[in-house]
Amino acid sequence: MWLRRAGFACALVSLPLLSAQADEPRGLQVDAQRIAQRIAELARFGANPQGGVSRVAFSEADIAGREYIKSLMREAGLDVRVDTAGNLIGRREGSDPHRPVIMTGSHIDSVPAGGNYDGDVGVIGAIEVAQVLNERGIRTRHPLEVVSFTDEEGGLIGSLAMTGRLQASALDVVSHSGQTIREGIRAVGGDPDRVQLARRRPGELAAFIELHIEQGAILYEEGIDIGVVEGIVGIRWWDVTIDGFANHAGTTPMNRRRDALLSAAELTLAVNRVATSLPGRQVATVGRIRAEPGAPNVIPGRVVMSLESRDLQAAKIQQVFEAIEAEAARIAEARQTPIRFEEIDVASEPAPTDERMREIISAAAAELGLTQKLMPSGAGHDAQDMTHIAPTGMIFVPSVDGISHSPQEFTSRADMANGADVLLQTVLAIDGGALERR
Amino acid sequence: MWLRRAGFACALVSLPLLSAQADEPRGLQVDAQRIAQRIAELARFGANPQGGVSRVAFSEADIAGREYIKSLMREAGLDVRVDTAGNLIGRREGSDPHRPVIMTGSHIDSVPAGGNYDGDVGVIGAIEVAQVLNERGIRTRHPLEVVSFTDEEGGLIGSLAMTGRLQASALDVVSHSGQTIREGIRAVGGDPDRVQLARRRPGELAAFIELHIEQGAILYEEGIDIGVVEGIVGIRWWDVTIDGFANHAGTTPMNRRRDALLSAAELTLAVNRVATSLPGRQVATVGRIRAEPGAPNVIPGRVVMSLESRDLQAAKIQQVFEAIEAEAARIAEARQTPIRFEEIDVASEPAPTDERMREIISAAAAELGLTQKLMPSGAGHDAQDMTHIAPTGMIFVPSVDGISHSPQEFTSRADMANGADVLLQTVLAIDGGALERR
Repeated sequence: MWLRRAGFACALVSLPLLSAQADEPRGLQVDAQRIAQRIAELARFGANPQGGVSRVAFSEADIAGREYIKSLMREAGLDVRVDTAGNLIGRREGSDPHRPVIMTGSHIDSVPAGGNYDGDVGVIGAIEVAQVLNERGIRTRHPLEVVSFTDEEGGLIGSLAMTGRLQASALDVVSHSGQTIREGIRAVGGDPDRVQLARRRPGELAAFIELHIEQGAILYEEGIDIGVVEGIVGIRWWDVTIDGFANHAGTTPMNRRRDALLSAAELTLAVNRVATSLPGRQVATVGRIRAEPGAPNVIPGRVVMSLESRDLQAAKIQQVFEAIEAEAARIAEARQTPIRFEEIDVASEPAPTDERMREIISAAAAELGLTQKLMPSGAGHDAQDMTHIAPTGMIFVPSVDGISHSPQEFTSRADMANGADVLLQTVLAIDGGALERR
Repeated sequence: MWLRRAGFACALVSLPLLSAQADEPRGLQVDAQRIAQRIAELARFGANPQGGVSRVAFSEADIAGREYIKSLMREAGLDVRVDTAGNLIGRREGSDPHRPVIMTGSHIDSVPAGGNYDGDVGVIGAIEVAQVLNERGIRTRHPLEVVSFTDEEGGLIGSLAMTGRLQASALDVVSHSGQTIREGIRAVGGDPDRVQLARRRPGELAAFIELHIEQGAILYEEGIDIGVVEGIVGIRWWDVTIDGFANHAGTTPMNRRRDALLSAAELTLAVNRVATSLPGRQVATVGRIRAEPGAPNVIPGRVVMSLESRDLQAAKIQQVFEAIEAEAARIAEARQTPIRFEEIDVASEPAPTDERMREIISAAAAELGLTQKLMPSGAGHDAQDMTHIAPTGMIFVPSVDGISHSPQEFTSRADMANGADVLLQTVLAIDGGALERR
């Protein structure tokens, strides 16, 4: 009995505390069940037989998915608009009309045959933050905007426009939907002829925060809850052409060959050796290779292959490239197969996140009792564009087995809720002046 | 003056000798100018802008070229017929009706975008032999047949039919012309429904001899006039599949990758190492490679590549394959990328030429004062089929730079004439009983 009473007494003591926390920002929590349910509902738009989605930007599935997101934004008490670049924006006014906007969000378009978490978790998570604030009647000082960016997978189109960096020529590129970007933006309610009006200037935003799945296996394999993103790696990409001499594979003795594929094989191994032997987390990959003429009975006369390298430091990528170039020169000389590198203009510069933002995210995770790791993002994200106009932070949650861009992509309900909780606390901390205090 | 008279006297002495040789078989010579002119005329049928021909079997160009060959055969005094497999045959009766046929020839069909010498030299050379005999009024004891085989480049179709080894299913294969082999044979005047009537049985032929360009650079680079072919190499061909794990090239650290292309690169180098380190003239080639999914920003999850090996000895090809298999097992284990080999059923067994035929060809070349080399044929030829029904020999002439199956293919007028002279003397030697004497 005593024990029972004691237990009851404890409950009596603790209940008011929980209740008190619920009235303060620090005690707020997202609704894990609601997030998971909405992720599942969003997955219906463009669902494919493999269990993922094919919801490429501007497709019917994308347009239907955007309508669903608009309905959720309205349910969360947000005023919904579409900017001229097609970015879907839900806004909640702050108590101080002079303060800049705290913005958070991600994207809901997918790659062809993609998964149900890439981008989606950041949009649903941001709406959840707004909805919790709304339900609890919490008014932030700063305005809050939840964004779902246009065509992230096609080249960060919406965030490039928002940061004033979208090239006019990009509008004529044919997107995965088969329409040009221009046609696509119009189809989702934007105005491609006035896309520059989507631009937000430095100072308009207090901060930008993106919640996203890691798309790698580091958090999952190490059993860590939250990744605090140091920055988005820079990417450089080359086409590598190796010239040998095509000849009959039956009549040309082994010692009279100039086989371009042998040089390509050596170079592919050298790329890996260079990237793994330098200290650091740089990566370098040969993902595509073609031997010409490409017949089993002809010695390859030419090989064209891709080379891609990424790192948080532009200088490191350059170092990797120069080491690979030196290996290539050696191979070309030894095998008498000239090798040339042509850089493709899709490079993106490394985009470090704001150091104060990292600290705020880290503190939020710590207060929530979550384990965390400071890490780069190897994949590109809208956040990398946003670093140009606002203090930017990124929150990663684990991807099971690191699988992404695949129907097998999966992040657990608990991990999504953890990420959204960190996002909620980060928004509240920034609203409370954490950026100014650091 | 004395000197001049002495020189004149020498000329007087030698002229009658030359004249006497011209009346005897041993003094016969082919007409180098006529051969070169006919090679040039034949090159008009299917001529392409690059200076070669696209005269794939059964095409309009092939049919027109065959008509030209028929006209040359008639000019050489041959009776022309087309057998049920579409082989074009010109026959000259011998003085002894009981003797088996001496057959010589090659093919005039080309690969797409091929050259003007592959096959053509053997057909024009064989016609030249018949024409010289005709012009000199020389009647051989054996009947002589000049053949231009059907669709050599599409898989030795005519010679397979002549040796009773053409699979019925082969008739339904679509040839380079776009027609099936069946339709093609009909288009050139054959009777595909009775293709078995093209078969010649062992004993019907006294010998088969094929004159051909080397298609390799050995004779050319070593400055040798004539190649005495030891045999046509056997060929085995595999599809090699390497399974890794496709993953994001940005988010997957170097030490967490199972990159199928790295294993493929190692294996490609191992194939070369095995083929070059074993004693002998075997070759092994990776000519085709594909990485999947094949995007610059995705780590290759699978690579499919070809493996082809050739040698005069079946056991040597097997030895090469087993050594490559052992290397593959080591690579698969070390990189955790299973490797499997699937043999493609296009294998051809090594086809040694008749030893007596080699000696006869070698003796003919020696008597003509030509340099010679005993060598394998790395390429496939109709002669390999003919070894099944007749003592078979092959005569090679140099290919400049070893280039073949290309508009750049070239063999000099002198080399073509040398080869045709050796062919002429070989025919005469066989007719004179050389095979029986060895």
